[in-house]
Amino acid sequence: MALGVDRTITREFARLALREDIGLGDVTTDSCVDADLVAEAVIYCKDSSVVVCGLEICSEIFRYYDSSITVSYHCQDGDFLKIPSKDNGRSSEAMIPLCRVKGRAASLLKTERVVLNVLGRMCGIATHTRELVSSLGSSSCTLLDTRKTMPGLKAFDKYAARVGGARNHRFHLGDGALIKENHVVACGGMARAIRRVRSAAPVSLKLEVEARTLKEVALALQGGADMIMLDNMSCEQMKECVRLVASKVPLEASGNIHQENLAEVAACGVDYISTSAMFRAPPADLSLLLSLVDP
Amino acid sequence: MALGVDRTITREFARLALREDIGLGDVTTDSCVDADLVAEAVIYCKDSSVVVCGLEICSEIFRYYDSSITVSYHCQDGDFLKIPSKDNGRSSEAMIPLCRVKGRAASLLKTERVVLNVLGRMCGIATHTRELVSSLGSSSCTLLDTRKTMPGLKAFDKYAARVGGARNHRFHLGDGALIKENHVVACGGMARAIRRVRSAAPVSLKLEVEARTLKEVALALQGGADMIMLDNMSCEQMKECVRLVASKVPLEASGNIHQENLAEVAACGVDYISTSAMFRAPPADLSLLLSLVDP
Amino acid sequence: MALGVDRTITREFARLALREDIGLGDVTTDSCVDADLVAEAVIYCKDSSVVVCGLEICSEIFRYYDSSITVSYHCQDGDFLKIPSKDNGRSSEAMIPLCRVKGRAASLLKTERVVLNVLGRMCGIATHTRELVSSLGSSSCTLLDTRKTMPGLKAFDKYAARVGGARNHRFHLGDGALIKENHVVACGGMARAIRRVRSAAPVSLKLEVEARTLKEVALALQGGADMIMLDNMSCEQMKECVRLVASKVPLEASGNIHQENLAEVAACGVDYISTSAMFRAPPADLSLLLSLVDP
Amino acid sequence: MALGVDRTITREFARLALREDIGLGDVTTDSCVDADLVAEAVIYCKDSSVVVCGLEICSEIFRYYDSSITVSYHCQDGDFLKIPSKDNGRSSEAMIPLCRVKGRAASLLKTERVVLNVLGRMCGIATHTRELVSSLGSSSCTLLDTRKTMPGLKAFDKYAARVGGARNHRFHLGDGALIKENHVVACGGMARAIRRVRSAAPVSLKLEVEARTLKEVALALQGGADMIMLDNMSCEQMKECVRLVASKVPLEASGNIHQENLAEVAACGVDYISTSAMFRAPPADLSLLLSLVDP
Amino acid sequence: MALGVDRTITREFARLALREDIGLGDVTTDSCVDADLVAEAVIYCKDSSVVVCGLEICSEIFRYYDSSITVSYHCQDGDFLKIPSKDNGRSSEAMIPLCRVKGRAASLLKTERVVLNVLGRMCGIATHTRELVSSLGSSSCTLLDTRKTMPGLKAFDKYAARVGGARNHRFHLGDGALIKENHVVACGGMARAIRRVRSAAPVSLKLEVEARTLKEVALALQGGADMIMLDNMSCEQMKECVRLVASKVPLEASGNIHQENLAEVAACGVDYISTSAMFRAPPADLSLLLSLVDP
Amino acid sequence: MALGVDRTITREFARLALREDIGLGDVTTDSCVDADLVAEAVIYCKDSSVVVCGLEICSEIFRYYDSSITVSYHCQDGDFLKIPSKDNGRSSEAMIPLCRVKGRAASLLKTERVVLNVLGRMCGIATHTRELVSSLGSSSCTLLDTRKTMPGLKAFDKYAARVGGARNHRFHLGDGALIKENHVVACGGMARAIRRVRSAAPVSLKLEVEARTLKEVALALQGGADMIMLDNMSCEQMKECVRLVASKVPLEASGNIHQENLAEVAACGVDYISTSAMFRAPPADLSLLLSLVDP
Repeated sequence: MALGVDRTITREFARLALREDIGLGDVTTDSCVDADLVAEAVIYCKDSSVVVCGLEICSEIFRYYDSSITVSYHCQDGDFLKIPSKDNGRSSEAMIPLCRVKGRAASLLKTERVVLNVLGRMCGIATHTRELVSSLGSSSCTLLDTRKTMPGLKAFDKYAARVGGARNHRFHLGDGALIKENHVVACGGMARAIRRVRSAAPVSLKLEVEARTLKEVALALQGGADMIMLDNMSCEQMKECVRLVASKVPLEASGNIHQENLAEVAACGVDYISTSAMFRAPPADLSLLLSLVDP
Repeated sequence: MALGVDRTITREFARLALREDIGLGDVTTDSCVDADLVAEAVIYCKDSSVVVCGLEICSEIFRYYDSSITVSYHCQDGDFLKIPSKDNGRSSEAMIPLCRVKGRAASLLKTERVVLNVLGRMCGIATHTRELVSSLGSSSCTLLDTRKTMPGLKAFDKYAARVGGARNHRFHLGDGALIKENHVVACGGMARAIRRVRSAAPVSLKLEVEARTLKEVALALQGGADMIMLDNMSCEQMKECVRLVASKVPLEASGNIHQENLAEVAACGVDYISTSAMFRAPPADLSLLLSLVDP
Repeated sequence: MALGVDRTITREFARLALREDIGLGDVTTDSCVDADLVAEAVIYCKDSSVVVCGLEICSEIFRYYDSSITVSYHCQDGDFLKIPSKDNGRSSEAMIPLCRVKGRAASLLKTERVVLNVLGRMCGIATHTRELVSSLGSSSCTLLDTRKTMPGLKAFDKYAARVGGARNHRFHLGDGALIKENHVVACGGMARAIRRVRSAAPVSLKLEVEARTLKEVALALQGGADMIMLDNMSCEQMKECVRLVASKVPLEASGNIHQENLAEVAACGVDYISTSAMFRAPPADLSLLLSLVDP
Repeated sequence: MALGVDRTITREFARLALREDIGLGDVTTDSCVDADLVAEAVIYCKDSSVVVCGLEICSEIFRYYDSSITVSYHCQDGDFLKIPSKDNGRSSEAMIPLCRVKGRAASLLKTERVVLNVLGRMCGIATHTRELVSSLGSSSCTLLDTRKTMPGLKAFDKYAARVGGARNHRFHLGDGALIKENHVVACGGMARAIRRVRSAAPVSLKLEVEARTLKEVALALQGGADMIMLDNMSCEQMKECVRLVASKVPLEASGNIHQENLAEVAACGVDYISTSAMFRAPPADLSLLLSLVDP
Repeated sequence: MALGVDRTITREFARLALREDIGLGDVTTDSCVDADLVAEAVIYCKDSSVVVCGLEICSEIFRYYDSSITVSYHCQDGDFLKIPSKDNGRSSEAMIPLCRVKGRAASLLKTERVVLNVLGRMCGIATHTRELVSSLGSSSCTLLDTRKTMPGLKAFDKYAARVGGARNHRFHLGDGALIKENHVVACGGMARAIRRVRSAAPVSLKLEVEARTLKEVALALQGGADMIMLDNMSCEQMKECVRLVASKVPLEASGNIHQENLAEVAACGVDYISTSAMFRAPPADLSLLLSLVDP
Repeated sequence: MALGVDRTITREFARLALREDIGLGDVTTDSCVDADLVAEAVIYCKDSSVVVCGLEICSEIFRYYDSSITVSYHCQDGDFLKIPSKDNGRSSEAMIPLCRVKGRAASLLKTERVVLNVLGRMCGIATHTRELVSSLGSSSCTLLDTRKTMPGLKAFDKYAARVGGARNHRFHLGDGALIKENHVVACGGMARAIRRVRSAAPVSLKLEVEARTLKEVALALQGGADMIMLDNMSCEQMKECVRLVASKVPLEASGNIHQENLAEVAACGVDYISTSAMFRAPPADLSLLLSLVDP
């Protein structure tokens, strides 16, 4: 049971991505491969370990193109899989199988690249998110992502961050209020900005305020923020803020955070640490091995 | 003069990406920022060096949203810019300015994230491509990209690879014929596959054949391939192929190629080396600093 | 300064609505009206009073179709305007002017119906919302809307509710978590449902729980809900809930609420009352009077 | 056998409306409800009587989202159903069941709101249309609708008017010619306007002329109009027009017509009366009761 | 003053057609032509005579792509232009100039093909329609087109038929009722089919019935058809029908009609003759001559 | 095994074309034909001979609208079928059956026109292409098409040319580089233009150069063109070019080529002849005969 990607989004993505990559038709496959030829394929991960992410989405993309394709899974989203250490040399035997696909060979060959590109990105994000979460150790601090997702892939990126163990920060500008410095300046003061957003934003949204100094934290608290973002503060500053706020509202550390300093930041006592590091992770190295059935 | 991204593509991208990131409206900005308030902003790169890429696209996205925004450039696509070494400490003074934007503050705040996400990706790809090309040294070998682009961003990714100094391999399945092992098996032989594609594909496209052994190279040559891809061969194998082919058609090395072994592969005498390494490069670290004009 | 409707949404709406209403072309206007003929028009409200809503949206629709059209406003969104009482007989002199439009006569005639339909709906919603809010009297209780908006017009409907003085409840299923009875049953208990949503939903969203009994309110409070919806409760029940919750989280009354019982419900001490009554309000009665400039 | 809504339109509507209401995913349902959990639901009408309208459209929307959903009907479009009078107190037992839906619980919960919103509107329109038609009594006069439909829902609105017993006036500006005062002025005379439209419009369309005076009716008749609209005339005026026209072409009464004066207007002898009153009717009050199958 | 193509349709067409023909970018032009280089071009017709059709549409397509392009016309839609007979040898001097375009050379080169393809088709249709209309001689019979238009180009095709002198038959299945043999069979009789359509179709549409025999004509007349189509009848049969109907409703001859037998059919006394011959006409032979301004 | 039209393109076409031709619903069929009535239909060609083209596309369009429709084929794309000569008089018995369709009568009646329009065009193109290819006789010269396709139908037009026996020239501006006179002028010389395109265009594309004189051919050859287009040359000039080039690169004859002079041009020794004559061919004359099953 997971908060997946809604099928309205996956279908629209499949439509656009397949048109982009197929263009006016796959001249090689359509010339060489009989329309009725059937094939089986296995998608493998060639990395030494991976957090699986995107299998059902990948199935939906295949089947959006050709509904007679069937997909069976060797694992499921969220599984953390490793190659036993002695096999770490990336020989074909040592690859991690993710799923098995069966259908018209031509359909598989035409959709392979789009599926691998998106699946690779999602596995890459989920895997790196897991590493980041691990860096938090036994801290009760929660890792958050950001809005620095790939344009057009936001729902997939955010899902992969969840699968990797992070919680999502707001998806877009419409499902979370976040008052930054420019908003404060434009409004003529933080208290006024909070009042305005409070009265205008849907009641279902939390109101977060970005603060750069202890004083701004105090103002945000006083103004009634639901959550405060500590922007680019030193550990010392953050500790002061934690003391000041005293758990009245959650605090989020943000800015210049990497795997290396995560534990240190978490130790400051903040409730959340946000980073877009997972969205910069390289994609998992995937491969689709196809064998024709009775060529 | 450069082969840019066609405006039909940039407009469609802007439409989709802005809707994705703005959702049903920017609840913070629309609450706080007066519609008539004007701002100026500068987009900086915080990395120590960068190949600039995407400035006009970024301008088109801004102006797609709000045609009264104006953009002026501090540099142009393809420029390689560095921070003088002593300033390498990422202080604000040491950042590299890319362009200056002026317009309604609210419009800038709502479009900032999409613009930075796409501009950051393009600069990241162009910059890493340049590094890869540099690794080729004085070789006459040409770096090619692949089809492992981000779904929905293909035209931008390919453009960034060009700007970084690579040439593009085919964009999609419709603008280049590439016969792979599965096509050969499905057809019942390489010669037959070549004949079929040759007679079916548009005359404007080259026909490339993937070969895994010297023997396959010989067959491809004999069959009349326009170009041959040496797939995952050792340097020794590639040198043999180069001797065999003797410049009759161009040869492309592909598979397991990274910055580290680029020079060595180039030294084998192949004409092209293809890699998708540039598309896995992390995005450039960009920042938009906004100041209100008479708030 | 208001949280308006984002232009990405208005443009898309204009595109679809104009194509729907113009079909393959306005056979009457295109036959009769010279392309260069210019006209001026005034949009009036024929109701005895109105909360103005949608003027800029109406301007954007006109200008989406023909960018040479200009619109000037006699009032602005949110204004509450009345015809002096003696003039209440709907004579033409007694109508309330909203805005003045100038441009090609043919363009005005073709877009008039779409503009009036959407403007009429928005004014109707805003006006009725104001009446509902008035019914709350001096209570500190806030009126909320619901998701029972017109499909395709959600952003306009929600905006009109804001302009009329309500706050918005969540826009759609993705920007607010609301655990209802079925979710609880499907999960096997409210505590478990709250835990699951808490860990899966973006941190920017509040978690509201629907409760039908005092006991469920207690469970929701204990489970950590950010807000509790009292569903179809009697006033007596609601007062008990108010006492129990003691301002720890906001309470929302919902179900079977109309203008007549609003004040009574508010007097129970709840923080919010939600209703979709404003979305069932009839549209304002608008009229566009056009005069040709030098026919 | 009825002139329904074409599936090309229903599908496009479903696509847009579901994306609008689901946003980036239903955070509550996707967190709480297992993907395989099956549910049954019944859609009821809570009003004391209703003209059923939209059942197949509702089925298509459900199934557009999830083709494994099945819908069975308790009645069909056009049925006029009433709660026996003693049960008029809206208790759950007294509600009117419309259809039964079975499928994945998650899919039903995500699509429920869109379906009820559109079904409620259609039932509301059909029911009020029936009341209007009833007001005409035994008159041979036919009720027509207008173009004041909800933008984006025109085909549904028009269908509901038909189901309620009205005939449709033109759908949009392209499938009916209607010469109004401004067209006459722009053309320099009614005769000229009629000639122009007659020679330019498709031969499949009727040409109707709007007249405000007996004299204009005479001119329209003389000019060869297929149908004449009597705009905002008094009963006395209309009777004169009926005498003048003497059934040579049909006459349509229009403007300021409500349920109260319908019979009186019909008694003037006009062939058609047009009104948009049905499109201002409040939606039927619907409810979907869902029960999980083996939760 | 003409019933043109609505801009909502032209814009959508431009979007799709340009994306289709530009693909992922014009590799030749973008490589060779500086973005700022300005050019002038003239579009000529190389045929010996032409009915001009599509100039404004062509201007809108150019300007949709690049709003800085300007177009000035040498003639206007509907003009019939000929090369003086001595110059009939198609030398460049003897070509007929249609319009002059000025703007970025790159933009002109990229849009040229789409513009010429659609303009050529429209001129071809208009020119052949004129020939067909001429064949009718002094007959009062009116030429109609059909629904056999090019998919995606219906509005342009229909417009060109109008410009050439024909009137349009219905545009699509929704703006004209036409009862054919299959409808009659499905309904169980013509009278019943007419009643059903009469009560279901919008009042703005005419009801035409297709008849194959004199008897069917009589039935259609009796049933109350607004117009009768004589399908594939001999001249003798048609004359009988004309006598029978005696101008009570218009008669349309249809089926197997070409330029050769048009006059003969017209002489039978029918009111309309419909043909799709104009939509099968070859496109006009157009050419765009471009000269760089200060290359 | 053939290079067909990708289903992503056919589906999108079906969506747009059906919406265009059905409008807001088929008022005749929906009024007369019961939704459950089933029919069978046969699509015939009424021409005396035809190259079949588009059967699967036609099946996909039918089934896009109503997936319960089934299609069985009497022949397949590429078949050349003739009516035995004595039957050449177009009697119904002498028509060529193409395929048989079964499904809801209403669905067949609504989609018939779109299917016949596109199928007729494709058969027409394929048939005329075959005639053109036949004119080449035993020459080894290959017939090419051009980019003068119908906007919106490019993939179908190009496919029909292939089925008729031609090879395709580039599809659009992005999958083939073709340097024309204007590019040369804009660049300041042919050598420079070739260098620029060579370095900017994807490596998968051939680089063709248009030449008008022997001297330009020499320059193109020297510059490294992959293919040279001889534009509007006389046979004498072309022969000189063939001698000069001596098979180093393929030569394409272009401009003013018709069925009449094809053999003569081929005899000059060029490798390719390109023409858009097939795209100007009239559509095949098709007919769908429908019979109700148990009406």
